[in-house]
Amino acid sequence: MVRWEPGAPERLRAAALELFAEAGYEQATVAQIAQRAGVTERTFYRYFSDKREVLFAGSAELQRRMVDAVTAAAPTADPARLVAIALDALASVFPAERREFARWRNAVLTAEPALQERELLKLASLKQALAVALTAHGVEGVTAAVAAESAIGIFHVGFAHWIADGEERDLAELQREALAALRAVVMWV
Amino acid sequence: MVRWEPGAPERLRAAALELFAEAGYEQATVAQIAQRAGVTERTFYRYFSDKREVLFAGSAELQRRMVDAVTAAAPTADPARLVAIALDALASVFPAERREFARWRNAVLTAEPALQERELLKLASLKQALAVALTAHGVEGVTAAVAAESAIGIFHVGFAHWIADGEERDLAELQREALAALRAVVMWV
Repeated sequence: MVRWEPGAPERLRAAALELFAEAGYEQATVAQIAQRAGVTERTFYRYFSDKREVLFAGSAELQRRMVDAVTAAAPTADPARLVAIALDALASVFPAERREFARWRNAVLTAEPALQERELLKLASLKQALAVALTAHGVEGVTAAVAAESAIGIFHVGFAHWIADGEERDLAELQREALAALRAVVMWV
Repeated sequence: MVRWEPGAPERLRAAALELFAEAGYEQATVAQIAQRAGVTERTFYRYFSDKREVLFAGSAELQRRMVDAVTAAAPTADPARLVAIALDALASVFPAERREFARWRNAVLTAEPALQERELLKLASLKQALAVALTAHGVEGVTAAVAAESAIGIFHVGFAHWIADGEERDLAELQREALAALRAVVMWV
């Protein structure tokens, strides 16, 4: 019989981040994470395939939310509107209450080159997914590709600021700031 | 005594690509590559640390050319001018005579997920280097970051078209096309 553990994934995520910060990512074990979260190792594996997955479990959901928003956009939406919709969808995944988690997670990633590589590959996958969704919505190939590159670039830059120490503005606002900066540059290139 | 091998790196590169295409990247050995190029294994290792390096040896040079061009730009150059200079420097590394090599190389990468990941990380490194060079030139942080993301995005999109079957336009022109597409989108977001 599988017992339902209320809040187990959240507790496991918090426990893992604490442990990664204290003991180092490499040293931390799934057994320790489960113990700290007050669950069995078996419960851990019900939610995550391994300890790295605790840090990247949100990626698929992030990509799905962005792609679904673009796919659901009105048929009349132009490429600019679709980019705005994609950026709004990405920002909506990171409300204020996720900022502390994101900061802890970033501290773990910063200490581990292999995790940073995984993060860059996640961004590349987001880009690819957005280009495909834009193309499926009728956006021409070169425009779809370059709009996807820049939209995820804007998300990446905005996100890096969102998790910076002392930053209090929300992600949507930071993305708007990055977009305005980009617009000022490309207008004149 | 180290013998000078005229054209050895070029012959090794061509031999490696032929062999990767025929035998598969995983199966090909350094001994086979050297034999096909008519040199010793020792000569191979004078130019490349391993067989993967044959595919990525140009990355450092590409990054250096781009960074040097931005660094050497006039102190009065604004962010838009610096992006144009970076794109010109990247395009200058890929004259028409390198297109066939780039197409063969791409065919090898397409068949090997691990090599594709390496390529994505190379692009991330280019981005990072460009952001640093722009900042060193006095460009404000958010602008530097988002301009670097988009400039390398434009290079990436342009390059993908440059190596497409039947494409005959040069890289600089394809980058201009991608930039124009990006400008049309971000003007209205």
